[in-house]
Amino acid sequence: MQGLMQSVPLLISSLLAHVERHHGDADIVSRRVEGDLHRYTWADCAGRARQVARALDAQGLPFSGRVATLAWNGYRHLELYYGVSGSGRVLHTLNPRLHADQIAWIVNHAEDQVLCFDLTFLPAVQAMHASCPTVEKWVALCDADRLPAGSGIPNLVSYEHWIGAQPGRYAWPDFDENSACGMCYTSGTTGHPKAVLYSHRSTVLHACAAALPDAMNLSARDAVLPVVPMFHVNAWGLPYSAAMVGAKLVLPGAAMDGKSIFELIETEGVTFAAGVPTVWQTMLGHMQANDLRFSTLGRTVIGGSACPPAMIDAFRERYGVEVLHAWGMTEVSPLGTLCTLKRKHLSLPRGEQAAIRLKQGRALFGVDMKIVGSGGEELPWDGKAAGNLLVKGPWVVKAYFKGEDGDPLVPDAQRRGWFPTGDVATIDADGYLQITDRSKDVIKSGGEWISSIDIENIALSHPAVAMAACVGVFHPRWGERPVIVVARKPGSEVTRDELLKFYDGKAAKWQIPDDVVFVEAIPLGPTGKMLKTTLREQLRGYQLTEAR
Amino acid sequence: MQGLMQSVPLLISSLLAHVERHHGDADIVSRRVEGDLHRYTWADCAGRARQVARALDAQGLPFSGRVATLAWNGYRHLELYYGVSGSGRVLHTLNPRLHADQIAWIVNHAEDQVLCFDLTFLPAVQAMHASCPTVEKWVALCDADRLPAGSGIPNLVSYEHWIGAQPGRYAWPDFDENSACGMCYTSGTTGHPKAVLYSHRSTVLHACAAALPDAMNLSARDAVLPVVPMFHVNAWGLPYSAAMVGAKLVLPGAAMDGKSIFELIETEGVTFAAGVPTVWQTMLGHMQANDLRFSTLGRTVIGGSACPPAMIDAFRERYGVEVLHAWGMTEVSPLGTLCTLKRKHLSLPRGEQAAIRLKQGRALFGVDMKIVGSGGEELPWDGKAAGNLLVKGPWVVKAYFKGEDGDPLVPDAQRRGWFPTGDVATIDADGYLQITDRSKDVIKSGGEWISSIDIENIALSHPAVAMAACVGVFHPRWGERPVIVVARKPGSEVTRDELLKFYDGKAAKWQIPDDVVFVEAIPLGPTGKMLKTTLREQLRGYQLTEAR
Repeated sequence: MQGLMQSVPLLISSLLAHVERHHGDADIVSRRVEGDLHRYTWADCAGRARQVARALDAQGLPFSGRVATLAWNGYRHLELYYGVSGSGRVLHTLNPRLHADQIAWIVNHAEDQVLCFDLTFLPAVQAMHASCPTVEKWVALCDADRLPAGSGIPNLVSYEHWIGAQPGRYAWPDFDENSACGMCYTSGTTGHPKAVLYSHRSTVLHACAAALPDAMNLSARDAVLPVVPMFHVNAWGLPYSAAMVGAKLVLPGAAMDGKSIFELIETEGVTFAAGVPTVWQTMLGHMQANDLRFSTLGRTVIGGSACPPAMIDAFRERYGVEVLHAWGMTEVSPLGTLCTLKRKHLSLPRGEQAAIRLKQGRALFGVDMKIVGSGGEELPWDGKAAGNLLVKGPWVVKAYFKGEDGDPLVPDAQRRGWFPTGDVATIDADGYLQITDRSKDVIKSGGEWISSIDIENIALSHPAVAMAACVGVFHPRWGERPVIVVARKPGSEVTRDELLKFYDGKAAKWQIPDDVVFVEAIPLGPTGKMLKTTLREQLRGYQLTEAR
Repeated sequence: MQGLMQSVPLLISSLLAHVERHHGDADIVSRRVEGDLHRYTWADCAGRARQVARALDAQGLPFSGRVATLAWNGYRHLELYYGVSGSGRVLHTLNPRLHADQIAWIVNHAEDQVLCFDLTFLPAVQAMHASCPTVEKWVALCDADRLPAGSGIPNLVSYEHWIGAQPGRYAWPDFDENSACGMCYTSGTTGHPKAVLYSHRSTVLHACAAALPDAMNLSARDAVLPVVPMFHVNAWGLPYSAAMVGAKLVLPGAAMDGKSIFELIETEGVTFAAGVPTVWQTMLGHMQANDLRFSTLGRTVIGGSACPPAMIDAFRERYGVEVLHAWGMTEVSPLGTLCTLKRKHLSLPRGEQAAIRLKQGRALFGVDMKIVGSGGEELPWDGKAAGNLLVKGPWVVKAYFKGEDGDPLVPDAQRRGWFPTGDVATIDADGYLQITDRSKDVIKSGGEWISSIDIENIALSHPAVAMAACVGVFHPRWGERPVIVVARKPGSEVTRDELLKFYDGKAAKWQIPDDVVFVEAIPLGPTGKMLKTTLREQLRGYQLTEAR
């Protein structure tokens, strides 16, 4: 027997309709590529998103047609988020940090029909447009009078001209909530990138779970700054969650340096910010150098990579900002866990609370997780056993676009599919996840697993170390042994032997790296993560200087 | 094109599975009918809910079969919530405040097959069991050795014996999230009660939206006390929201007096409580008489009836407890709006903030609302125009069980159905709802509407008035004129003329009641609301003492 409640689909347009009706005058502030601050309201955004929908209708773009973006966090990008998905098309956010050839490959694979780009990325578009035959229209996210002349790009139009011709009246259509709303390519370690295809249902459920008090705790009293880019996993869903709760939204554009981000937080009264560790590192450096303090920032979510303990300490102890450590990935929309305390933790001493906060936290309601050993057997939640992390839930991927990689899911005894994350983790008795490594980065030494993240965190706690990457190199007896690759801070010195000695008492003897390799800089990938694959290639054939 | 995210249905069993895995050791404390406090954990609850499911399987109760409860807020009732719905059956919470004949009528209409009752309600069950032929099994919520002998009830079994015979191993089944999970009868003003049939989807979505920071703001750091009964609209969904977030749950049983509730709040460290105004009135009276203070209570949700301003003041100003005014109804699962401030309100003077908090608040994400005039035309959101309130959303009813009342929805221009709530309300430009009346209670005087609630609130602010109900009586010239029915506080005096004079300057002249009727007590219905229908009947043929 069915219940007798209304059949109202969970659609992205319902987020916009809600914020327009109930929080129409809440602000959206954007740092533009031009450098100035643009300021308008959610009601203005909704009106222009409807114009986007009309422009796509006028062009005859079909339901599920792909509209790509190459853009920073800004109000026009936000209008595309809602106008494209709300009207039933698929928003395809491209990562501009990829090489133009890679972007072109992805555009062709996605069969994008419209591509909208910030003028920053004009050179990339000029380099690739000729090899993107599916794209019918190129839209520069600028005013009509700033449209670059003689760009050589056919059918190029300015965004303002494109939507300006359209009326703001439009009724968001109703359709199946399982329809695709957006896609994001993820660069696997091997082969071509694969696309995750989000649905309206998955996006709305994720936005709601992410706003809960035990997750990002978002309300109509917040001013939200997504430093995480809207071109990668939808800025952790913040453009959706902010609309759901009616928060003020502050979008930093291309100005991602520490000084600009700090100033934006202060001038706009930001209460909540989200970013990857590398961005916060530069901001904290700027603050320390200039003896600055926050006036309004209350909490920050840090994810994307494991956050160094020293950074969590700096935010909490020096600046009084709550740090919410998170774990997620493109295939999980992206949020899987967030670290907030339980009732029973509130009476613990500060130090024990701090130890819990170093973990990536508890599963959001909706996300199931488990860890399994190499034979697929489920491992205990004891905070010690480390295994491959598998997840399941309504905002977890079940397959990639066009069936790339076949069926990625691992069935359980009830034949329900689990997504293997490629992360290695422990889970403690209270359900707190701690990522110990990527499964491809873990170092397998004589049958034991060494967490590259643990070894890196020790190096990072040395005052002379700016960045550190631990990789495994071939060893005839142990299979693999860890080597730590280190970039020193400018003007700082530390020798190989000093650094190896620094590990004494901080790691078990067999976990201490066999060698240190000093480099000028550690290569970073397009989402800001360290490229260990590159490092491993550079170290192929590396001879350990001393046998253990 | 469909998205490629996992198809995971939103099921009530997923709430229990989540809390068991991630918050298994969080406490559930129940005041038992026996008077003592029972204490166990969410993991214990989950194990016994599985035994309930096994007991229903053993009995052969089919999918969607109805299991009725006549019970207070307690741990066994909670196990039935999850065991019945989680296994695919329908939980039917009966209101024990109804007369045994009415209960029997409802049991027959619902075709309940199992009926579980607290021993408090043994006399009612003895009076009705013979007229309930669909019920195959009667379960007394008690230990085996407390089963009443010679009750005359056939197939009577104790709950502990019933589930004790079953193992705790059980895999919660997967099924369509739109399946019915629970039902609640609502007593219309005319005719027989009608049943709202909730679905798993509507219940889980409601539980999530209700836990958001702008709604009840529930987290794993809360101890939640539902004073609102689990026998009426699922205690506002708190048994579900508490599991979703892993909160401690405190269940007050039959001890609903002010002293017991206050003691439970203090001894169990309750941070959040929910109830109707009448319950809080007695608790505040107890506190004031004994000069008591709260140690842990941070906030309370008040709904069910409009909360008198004086009560909001008492909680906030005297006891430092945040009061969240709410609006809801059985047909809305029940939460429609909750009153929390927006960012722009934070800088307002205290008095202006207080004025906003008197309203019932903003729509939860998911709930759409509008107000319409008598011709169905939509009225502006200006905080002044009062109209009939209509709502729409995934946890709003679309029809009643067995098609009673036909199609209750009112279609809009897009042919989407809106549920007419029967409430009259204003909505201001910021989307804050204020209920001015029930549409059947509004007094229509010479073409103008007079809000009975406004007139009652003025009377309630008089120190001698304990309760007040304003009803319309026939008037040859104006159609209707308001009369205020008043119960004085014990030992307090106020005359008709004094009270009418008290309205001077507090209401427009034409809104002031024409007369005062003093009574010993105002009749209350089974959910604690004033029975204005009874008052209107008593006042039929009433002659106004003075023509206006």
